Amino acid sequence: MVLAPFLAVGIIASLCPSALAQTDPLPSWNEGAAKKSISDFVVRVTTQGGPDFVAVPERIAVFDNDGTLWTEQPYYFQLAFALDRIKAMAPQHPEWKDKQPFKALLEGDKKAFAAAGKDGLLQVMAVTHAGMTIDDFTKAVIAWTETARHPRFNRRYTELVFQPMLELLTYLRANGFKTFIVSGGGVEFMRPWTERVYGISPEQVVGSSGEVKFRIGANGKPELLKIAKIEFVDDGPGKPVGINRFIGRRPIFAFGNSDGDLQMLQWTVAGQGLRFAGLVHHTDAEREYAYDRESKVGKLDKALDEATAKGWAIVDMKQDWKIIFPPEK
Amino acid sequence: MVLAPFLAVGIIASLCPSALAQTDPLPSWNEGAAKKSISDFVVRVTTQGGPDFVAVPERIAVFDNDGTLWTEQPYYFQLAFALDRIKAMAPQHPEWKDKQPFKALLEGDKKAFAAAGKDGLLQVMAVTHAGMTIDDFTKAVIAWTETARHPRFNRRYTELVFQPMLELLTYLRANGFKTFIVSGGGVEFMRPWTERVYGISPEQVVGSSGEVKFRIGANGKPELLKIAKIEFVDDGPGKPVGINRFIGRRPIFAFGNSDGDLQMLQWTVAGQGLRFAGLVHHTDAEREYAYDRESKVGKLDKALDEATAKGWAIVDMKQDWKIIFPPEK
Repeated sequence: MVLAPFLAVGIIASLCPSALAQTDPLPSWNEGAAKKSISDFVVRVTTQGGPDFVAVPERIAVFDNDGTLWTEQPYYFQLAFALDRIKAMAPQHPEWKDKQPFKALLEGDKKAFAAAGKDGLLQVMAVTHAGMTIDDFTKAVIAWTETARHPRFNRRYTELVFQPMLELLTYLRANGFKTFIVSGGGVEFMRPWTERVYGISPEQVVGSSGEVKFRIGANGKPELLKIAKIEFVDDGPGKPVGINRFIGRRPIFAFGNSDGDLQMLQWTVAGQGLRFAGLVHHTDAEREYAYDRESKVGKLDKALDEATAKGWAIVDMKQDWKIIFPPEK
Repeated sequence: MVLAPFLAVGIIASLCPSALAQTDPLPSWNEGAAKKSISDFVVRVTTQGGPDFVAVPERIAVFDNDGTLWTEQPYYFQLAFALDRIKAMAPQHPEWKDKQPFKALLEGDKKAFAAAGKDGLLQVMAVTHAGMTIDDFTKAVIAWTETARHPRFNRRYTELVFQPMLELLTYLRANGFKTFIVSGGGVEFMRPWTERVYGISPEQVVGSSGEVKFRIGANGKPELLKIAKIEFVDDGPGKPVGINRFIGRRPIFAFGNSDGDLQMLQWTVAGQGLRFAGLVHHTDAEREYAYDRESKVGKLDKALDEATAKGWAIVDMKQDWKIIFPPEK
C-alpha cells in the first residue's frame, strides 16, 4: 500500500510519457498572442518531418540587448558605465576640474553636459573606452557590474534583465537554437557578463566596436590596445551587416524593441521558410517604463508600424509579462 | 564454445574498460615529438582536478586555413577562384578582350598579368568579389568548389585538405574544444564549405572581409551587397585583432604555417596557463610542396625562428604525416 502512489505515477507516466514533461517553459509569460506565437513557431520548426522543420545548425536566434533583454532607461546602461568611469578616473585627471565636458559631469551639471552635445559625448566615450588594453577594459566593466546601481530600482544593472526573455533564451536553447546578441552596444562592454547573465558566450555576442591595435607591450608581452576610433556601428542597417559578418547565416528568429532593430527583423523574415520577428513594446510605466514613438532612447516608431502591418509578434510588456525582473536574491 | 570469443571480449572490456576506447585519434600522424606534444596538451587541459585543467568554454582552438588546413600552392586557392571567375564572367564582359588585366588573363598571358601588378590584382578581386549580393557570391563559390580542379593534383580544391589536420580538428572537438578558422582568406569565400569539409560552422570562421551594404533590392526584398572596398585584413597583427573581435576570448591552442600567423601564436601563448602553438612546416615536395623562408606564398621565416626558440610544435610534413590528403573516393 505504501508503494501504490509511486506505482500510480509510474503507470501514468508510462501511459502518457509527455505528461510529466509538460512544464511551461515560459512561466513568466501570460497566455496570449505573443506567447502563443513563440511556442507555435518553436513547435513547427522543431517538428521532424513537418513542413516547417529547420535543421539544428540553422536554428539561429538573434536578440537586441538594450530594451530587449535588459532595461535601457533612463539612459543606455553603457552611458551610465561611462559616466561612472569618469568619476572613478577623475583623481588621476586633475585637469578635468576645469575642462568640459568633464567639469560638468563631475559637478553633476546636466545642462552644461547637454550643451557639450555630441562632441562632449564622444570625448567621454574616448577617455572611458579607449587608451587601455582589452584586458584592463574588461576588468573595469566587471568591477562596475558588481557595484554600480540603477538610479530608480537601486539594483545592479545586470539584475535589470527581463525574466520572461531569460526564459525565452533558455527555451530556445533547449530546442536546439544557438542564441546570439546583436546589439548597438559595445561588444567589449557586453562580453564580460553575457555568459553569466544570459548564458550567451562571448563568441555569440555581436556589437559595435572601436579599433583595436596589436602591439608588443613594455613588458615584452603582446597586448591589444583600444583606440579612440569607431570601427563598426551595429545599429539599424548595420545589424544585418553585423549578422552577416559575425554569424554568416541568416537567423530564423529575431527579437528587438526599437527602430534600430528594423533592418535586422526585415533581414530575418526575408529568408525562405518559417521565420519569427518580435518586438518588446515598453508599455509598463509602473513596473518598468512606457515609451515608443517619441522616446529619445529606444525610439519605436517605424518598426512598430511595420510589425503591425506584417503581423510580427508585439509583446505588450504590461499585458504579456507576469514579472519584469528576476526576483531579488 | 561458439560464445566463448564474445564472452572473452566481454571479460576483457569489463576488466579494463578503456582498452576498447584506446583507438588512436590521430592515425595519420607518425609517432614523434609533434604528435606527442598535441596529445600531451589535450590530456593535461582535460584532466579534471589536474594543475592544467581548462573548463570547456575556454577550450578555444584556432587554425589558419591556407597552408595549415589545406594546400596553398602554387597560389592561394582563392586566387584560382578569382581567375576562374574572370573566365566564367567574360561572356558578359566583351570589353575585357581589350582591357588589362582581363585581356592578359583571358589570353593566359602571365607576363602581361604580372606587369599589371597589385593594381591589376585589386581590379580582379573587385570584379570577382564585389558588385553582387552575398547570396549570389555564395552560389558562385559553391559552384566553383564542385567543378574546379587543382592544376597539379587534378582534384577538387576542397579535397586538398590535410587528413592529419582533419583528424586533429575532430580530436579536439571530441575533447570539448570549439574549433575556429582564423584566416587571411576572405570570410565569405570560406564559409560556404567549411562546415562540410572541416566540420567548422560559418559562425566559427574568422577571415578578411570587404564592405557590405544593406539595401532594399529592386524586388522590394532586403539584400546585402558586396562593395569593392577592403574592410578588414585578418593577417599578421590583424589575426589577434580578429580573434578579439569575433571570438572575444583568447585561444589556448593555435596552429599556423607562415609569418602571417606569428602574432596569432604570440597572442595565444601569452595567456595564463598551459598553451599550445604549432606550425605546419611544408617539407614534402614529393607529396605536396616544400617551401619556407624564400617562398612568395606562405613565407615561413620569422615564425620558424620564434617557434624554434620558444619550443613550439613544428610539424615536419614529410616526417610527421603518414598521408597528406584524404584518399580519393
